[in-house]
Order: sequence, then structure tokens, then C-alpha cells
Amino acid sequence: MAEAATRRRGRGGGGAARRAERSAVSFETARFIERNIPNFEVLSEEALEIIEYNAETVLEEIGVNFPDNPAALDRWRDAGADVSGERVRIPRGLARKLCATAPSSYTQHARNPARSVEMGGNNLVLAPVYGPPFVRDADGGRRYATMEDFRNFVKLGYMSKWLHHSGGTVCEPTDVAVNKRHLDMLHAHMTLSDKPFMGSVTEPSRARDSVEMAEIVFGKDFVTRKTVMTSLININSPMTFDDVMMGALEVYAQANQACIISPFIVGGAMAPVSVAGTLTQVLAEVLAGIAYSQLCREGAPVIMGAFVTSIDMNSGAPTFGTPEAAHITYGAGQLARRLGLPFRSAGSFCGSKLPDAQAAYETANSLNMGLLAGVNFMLHACGWLEGGLVSSYEKFVMDADQLGTLHHLAAGVQVDENAQALDAIREVGPGGHYLGCAHTQANFKEAFWKSDLLDYKPFETWEDEGARDTAQLATLRVKKLLADYQQPPMDPAIREALDAYIAEKKAAEPDSFM
Amino acid sequence: MAEAATRRRGRGGGGAARRAERSAVSFETARFIERNIPNFEVLSEEALEIIEYNAETVLEEIGVNFPDNPAALDRWRDAGADVSGERVRIPRGLARKLCATAPSSYTQHARNPARSVEMGGNNLVLAPVYGPPFVRDADGGRRYATMEDFRNFVKLGYMSKWLHHSGGTVCEPTDVAVNKRHLDMLHAHMTLSDKPFMGSVTEPSRARDSVEMAEIVFGKDFVTRKTVMTSLININSPMTFDDVMMGALEVYAQANQACIISPFIVGGAMAPVSVAGTLTQVLAEVLAGIAYSQLCREGAPVIMGAFVTSIDMNSGAPTFGTPEAAHITYGAGQLARRLGLPFRSAGSFCGSKLPDAQAAYETANSLNMGLLAGVNFMLHACGWLEGGLVSSYEKFVMDADQLGTLHHLAAGVQVDENAQALDAIREVGPGGHYLGCAHTQANFKEAFWKSDLLDYKPFETWEDEGARDTAQLATLRVKKLLADYQQPPMDPAIREALDAYIAEKKAAEPDSFM
Repeated sequence: MAEAATRRRGRGGGGAARRAERSAVSFETARFIERNIPNFEVLSEEALEIIEYNAETVLEEIGVNFPDNPAALDRWRDAGADVSGERVRIPRGLARKLCATAPSSYTQHARNPARSVEMGGNNLVLAPVYGPPFVRDADGGRRYATMEDFRNFVKLGYMSKWLHHSGGTVCEPTDVAVNKRHLDMLHAHMTLSDKPFMGSVTEPSRARDSVEMAEIVFGKDFVTRKTVMTSLININSPMTFDDVMMGALEVYAQANQACIISPFIVGGAMAPVSVAGTLTQVLAEVLAGIAYSQLCREGAPVIMGAFVTSIDMNSGAPTFGTPEAAHITYGAGQLARRLGLPFRSAGSFCGSKLPDAQAAYETANSLNMGLLAGVNFMLHACGWLEGGLVSSYEKFVMDADQLGTLHHLAAGVQVDENAQALDAIREVGPGGHYLGCAHTQANFKEAFWKSDLLDYKPFETWEDEGARDTAQLATLRVKKLLADYQQPPMDPAIREALDAYIAEKKAAEPDSFM
Repeated sequence: MAEAATRRRGRGGGGAARRAERSAVSFETARFIERNIPNFEVLSEEALEIIEYNAETVLEEIGVNFPDNPAALDRWRDAGADVSGERVRIPRGLARKLCATAPSSYTQHARNPARSVEMGGNNLVLAPVYGPPFVRDADGGRRYATMEDFRNFVKLGYMSKWLHHSGGTVCEPTDVAVNKRHLDMLHAHMTLSDKPFMGSVTEPSRARDSVEMAEIVFGKDFVTRKTVMTSLININSPMTFDDVMMGALEVYAQANQACIISPFIVGGAMAPVSVAGTLTQVLAEVLAGIAYSQLCREGAPVIMGAFVTSIDMNSGAPTFGTPEAAHITYGAGQLARRLGLPFRSAGSFCGSKLPDAQAAYETANSLNMGLLAGVNFMLHACGWLEGGLVSSYEKFVMDADQLGTLHHLAAGVQVDENAQALDAIREVGPGGHYLGCAHTQANFKEAFWKSDLLDYKPFETWEDEGARDTAQLATLRVKKLLADYQQPPMDPAIREALDAYIAEKKAAEPDSFM
């Protein structure tokens, strides 16, 4: 099981950093998951071949749009595509051939080397919710997110044992100017956590700022050679690659930084209502997007993404944790493995307004499905509420606790002599009990996953303590974690350089809230 | 997908029954699930062989206890086992050989033939919670269960679209004498529902009463030839087969009625703390129990059961929806398929005191795992709360709604031309949307599973309607279902005979609450 405590921290450059390191409280973080269980597959070989054939038909006959991006059209034309206006039609086989130069896995380095992650293979890296403009907690209710909320979620992520990645836009800090908030967001990830993080994608210039800030933290030479960010490039489904997202992709790919190329699909609205039709479109879109990343820089690290959910056809609301979303995710995982690419999907998805039973059913459905689908990078793995409109403090710690179950599930079943436990069965015999036997004493500490949050108390104790539900227990845990938080050490010279970079950037242009 | 509405009802014996049938409201019930997806398997061939070898070692070297049951010891001795006191040691291979006469699947007939179920193969039959002495609802809180509660749960089960089976002790009606409550419980299943049900196992005489009542409902000749009950025989783990349970098994097997032979294990207490060790003991126990059923009557229908969960080693409380329970269930499914027997496991398990997020996380973990493990009969599929101490009204309808996701997941992925949806992708093209396209219009009604309970409303509507959580929505649904309930028709002569049987039985002995 990938649970080795990773206690080494900081880059330890100078004496001050070393002193800070010695005095720092150590928070345990599990290593990323290395699966020792099979993937669950729902598509037959024949079904896979049909979908792959049809995806090529879509690229060849219908094509994809690259609006407002003449450089992209030139790249496609040079590569052999048929370009007409903003429409790019890609001859059968070309996109898949171009995808072949993308690496099957890559390391994303963290500033604490023990927290670097491997994207791809049998691995699963877990990152928190991304994008909500609102936050919710028990005390403050639902409200617009602020930079203070953003910092709190980064702190909670840093302190979550089962979370390997600090994520990106853990909430949208609406109190900071749109053209400057990416600086504060990156600063928070870089200074309040030492886990790997994501860069800005809302303008190509902000992607460049992200790379420059990473160069301050990791060193320019290191960033040139190594991948230190994985950023989220959404495709505007169906089949449209907008110039802002493509501009950010171009910056990152050329800097050898990783991107997730991800269709964003509510089935029935941005893709056909059928699973096979949606998978066809997903595959066509990622083939085009990943091929384009390789046109920008051959060998640029990428992840095949699939954000796909279903819809309530009565209300038009997206629905989460549904069987159809599961089928699409299982199938997309199979397609990604046949492409030889890391795969991003699933998360703590739910449509509920509250961290209640609906939220938990839908989330558990999606988390379990993500593990079994062979997902390599799970964004939104904790904290998602209300269809992604809300980052929930309580749900963040509730989901983060459940991520422990994925670690233990992925470990598979041991069958060595100790695990066979024949001596224990002999010792106890018919009618006995195992609580005190030697095998139990030797193994009980590691035997079973145990929640750090859920209630296991006797009824009477639970009642005496206030008959609290899960959300109430989570409120207490949020408060305790934020009170216990201690910042990971950072070389003061790096911190000063980061602060100076941001001050200069902020001074260079007026605030904009557009 | 096995969702055909089954609207035929009643046995339609006489004119009164036919009139009743015509005027009855029809409640839709989905057909039992026929899986069109693979099973998820965590054990390698080598691991399976080790566990199977070790289970035979347990039976041969350690053996099992059949206390207070000289007839059972005689049967074992005659079959070639080594009997010493109450200990039965079974030579390697004998138990497995005896199990070979048990059918790999069987039909359990319902009094409404459209609701008969197939136990085994790729099928999954869902039944409600079994056994809790307490009930809980929002209005009444947690309290001892009564016969009125029992009848309410049978009604809710009858009205649940995704529930195929009426179950057995949906709660323990503590206001009826212990020696008579089985009569009222069976009467409720037989008259308030027309789905298949379970018989009493708390005394061999009560098993006989169950068979006699079934003969009244189905006809004596029918019951002799066909299986109309599946009853729950727990093994007193480790490796003890108590005389009451074995007595009930003997009655049912000899009457050609089905039993689940089921170890009841909290890992670390009744079995080793390791997954492989627990599976070894589970297999040894079911081999002995099922072999014994075949000694009572060759060919008697049985199900291999595995009720297995983990424990919180700090408090001693059983824990549910855990990764270790999942591993054991996946492995037990593999062992059952190698034995060629129907498999019972999983359910709406949780340790939570309330129908909250903990309850839903744990339940969703277990329900999903049960589907993928290849479970054929899922007892406790809805309504389980607080480690099985409580039947929850709210959770019953919450879980019963979630069971719809299992039906859709099990259906797998269609890849026919309509599902491929290439024409839809052509029609919509890059930048368009699918909401109005011809393919969406033709397919949206069946495309996505939709909850009958969960909240999909816009935030503002939800807030205006009282900002209700899932449990509050469930309270409303419980009240509506019970208000809408209409009894399925039954031949008045049968009803009179049933009532007379019970009156006579009740008059024959004084009440006992021991």
C-alpha cells in the first residue's frame, strides 16, 4: 500500500530553512496510489473498435473548430490537415499518430521532493475541487468565495493525509481583481503547501506568469528540464478549441509543463444522450487536442481528460454520480489506455446543495468508479458541492477522509503466510473469538481502514455528545485543522523573490473585474 | 435493461379475485437485474487456490461444531466425516463433493408470477433490511419496532420499483409474543405484498409453520414441487452450526425450500483480521453448511452467504462500507462462482446513527461493491441503519431509490447504430448543442437514470421550498408512499384460510416474550 509517511520537507537551501525544517510540525501525507487491483472495463474489443473508428470519422468528415487562432490553423495545415476557415478536418489516423509522441507517464515535481507525483501507469493522484465561485460552511452559509477562503482550502488540502496534490482554483477568489487573482492563487499554493499544484489558464499571459513564478520557486533551469505544473485545458464541447485555452496550452506545452486536455460535457447538451455517442465525441476531441499539444511541442506531457456527466432532461440540471457517467468514465479509461496516455476523470461530484446523504451517495458512486476506471489524476476529489458551484468546507474534509478508502481498496489482497492466518484459525477454533489471539494482536493496527471523521461510537455516547450528524462532525474537523495548521518551511530568499514578483506584476496594470 | 414493468398480479383464482384485480392500482416493479457487465475480481488464480486449499485444511484438521444435534452428527458420520463429540472433521474434498448436488440457480416463485425471481447466474435480486429491533423516523425518533412498523416496511417494499423481494424480518415486531410473531410477519408479507419473501428460522417449528402458511397461499402441491421461500440460516462463526438454525435448515431443505447458508462475521472478532484468513474461514464454513444441506436433501436449493464486515479496533464497533469488507466480498464472489452456487452478500450497510452523509457514503460503497462482486441475492439492500440495530424509514426510501442506479449500471453499454449517434454528431457539429436534435428527442426519456427522491432543482427554488436535505425529502416520500399504498388482491378464500391458520396457532399456546 502506498501509505509511506513522507516527512521530509522543504528544499533546505540555507541555514534558516534548515532551522525552520527542524522546528516544523510534520503532517503526514500518503504517497500517491499505486493500484494493485485490475481496472474495471465495460466495453468489448468490438465496441472499442467501433468507437475508435467513429471518432476518426468525426475528425475526418466533421472536423473541429480552432476559432481566432491563425497560428494553430497554420500548424494544422503544415501537419497535413484540411483547414477551411476555422474548421480543421483531420485525415483518418493523423491525430492518433501525432498523439504517439506524448509520454505515457510523467513526474510532476513538488517543491518538497517527497511529494512529487507520477502521472500515468497504475497510479492515482488525488487533487481537490476546482473552480467554484461560491463557498459554503455551517457558520457562514453559501456566499461568494474570497482569497481568505482560497487560502483556507489550500491549508486544508495541505493537511489532508490522503490528498496528494494541492490542485488549482480550489475556489474562485472573487474579491481579487480578475487580472491579478492568479498571482495570489499561485502564491498560496506555493507558500502554504508543499504539494504539487496547477497553473493559471484564464489568459496565455497568466500561464506565462505561472511559469515565471514556478521558475522562482524551483529554479529556472529545473523548470526547463522538469514538469512542475499540470494545468487544466477544457475543450469547449462539441469540438471547439477556444483561443484562450489553446493559448494557455501553447505556453505550457512549449515550457514542457503538463496540461490536461479535457472535454467538458453534460451529456445530452454538449454530446449525444448515448454513452457510445458521447465516448465517440470525447475521443475525437482529445485526439485533436492532444495532437495539437504535440504540434506545439513534440513530447509535451499531457493527460487525456474526460469531464462527463448526465443531465436531468426535465430541469436541464446536470446530474452526478449516475450510472451513465460511470459507463462513460469506464469506457474513457479503456480508450485512454489504448492511446497510452494518463487519464483524468471522476471526482467528488454531486448535485446536492448541502453536504447531506445525496451529496455522499453521488460522491461515493463517483469516487469508487474513478478508482476502478483506472483514473490517473482525479481532480475534484474532495470538496465539490452543488454541481461545482460551491466549494464546501465540510464536504472537503468529509470527502478527503473517504479518499482513504481508495488507498486501501487499491492495495489489493495479500496472500502471504501471515495473511493466510491458518495458525490463528487453529488457535481460536470453533466457537472461540479472535480479539485476543496472537495474529490479531500482531496485525490489528494495519488491518482495517479507519475514518478520522465518521462516528463509530456506541449509541448512548453519541447521543450524550449531542447526536451530531456527519456535517456537524465535519465542521469541528475543519476548525481543528485550520487551528492546527502550520506553514511548511520555504527558503526566505525564494519567498522574498515571489513576493516581489507579485508586487511588481500587480503594480504594472490597474485592477480589472471583467 | 431488466426494467420491464410487471403489471400482472394476483393468482386470479375466483371471480372476486378477478374483480379485485381489475380495480387495483398497479405499482411498477422492475424485473430482477440481469447483469450485462463483468464481475470485478481481486484474487488471482494462485490466491484462490491457496484459500481453497486452506479451507479444506480447516475442515480436515480443525473441523466444525454441530452442538446439540445428534441427528446431524449421524448424517456426517454416514457421509464419511470424522465425528468426535460435537466436532465434525471433514476429509479433504468431501464437503465440496457434497456441495455439487446443490443447484447453480433456482426460481423463487412469488404469488404474483410476474414477480418470481431467478437466484443465481448473472442475476441480482434485491431485498430489504433484515433483523433490526429498533426503527427510526424523523417524527418518532429511535424506538422499539412494532408490528405496525413491520407492516409499514412491507408496504414500502411493495411500492419500491427497484426492490424485487419483500424480505423477511424487515424489523423485529417487539410488541408481538416471540413465539407468535413469525405468524404475523409472514401474514404481512403474504397479504400486503405480492413479491417473494423469506420464512422464519427462529425455531424449527416456526419453519414448519412457514411452510404450512406457504402451502395455503400457493397450494400444497405447488410448494412440494417449487421453491417459494428463501430463508436466512446464519452460521455462528467461527465454525459453529447451532441446533436451532440447523433445525430450521433441515425443515426447509426437506421441503425443497431454499436457504442462505451464511457466516456472520465481524473481522477480527469472529474471523482473522486479514482478508485471506477471513475468506478461508468463510469458505470452510459455507462448504460445511451447504454440504450439510445436501445431506438433509440432495438437490435442496441453497445460496452461499457471506455477511462480513470490519471492526474499529479502538471501540470494538463493527464498521461498514470499508475497503476490507469490499475485498472480502469480491473474493467471496469468486469463490462462490468456482463452487457454482448463488451468492449472497453486501447491502445498505452503515454504522451511522442517522440517515446522513456517513450513512450514504458507507451504503454507496457497499451497494456498488455488491453489484460488481457478482452478488445474486442482496439482503439488506435498503433501510439498514446503525450497524443493523435500526430499520430507518427515511433510509429505506433513500436506499431504494439508489437501487435504480444498480439496474442501469448492470445494463452495460449499447453500441448499436442508434447508440453510436454519428448522425447526431453530424447534425449538431462543432459549437452546436444537442438539446433539440433529433437523436436527443428520440432517446432522452430512456437515456439517463433519474432519481425519484434527490434534489435536482435550481438553488433558488430549493431555497424557497425550505432548503431541505435528503432526509427531509425522504420523510415526505415515506408519508406519500404509505398514503398511496393499496393492497394487492388475494383470493378471499386463501385470505380466510390464512387468518384461520394463524388464529388457531395463536390459540394453541400462551404468549411468550422469551
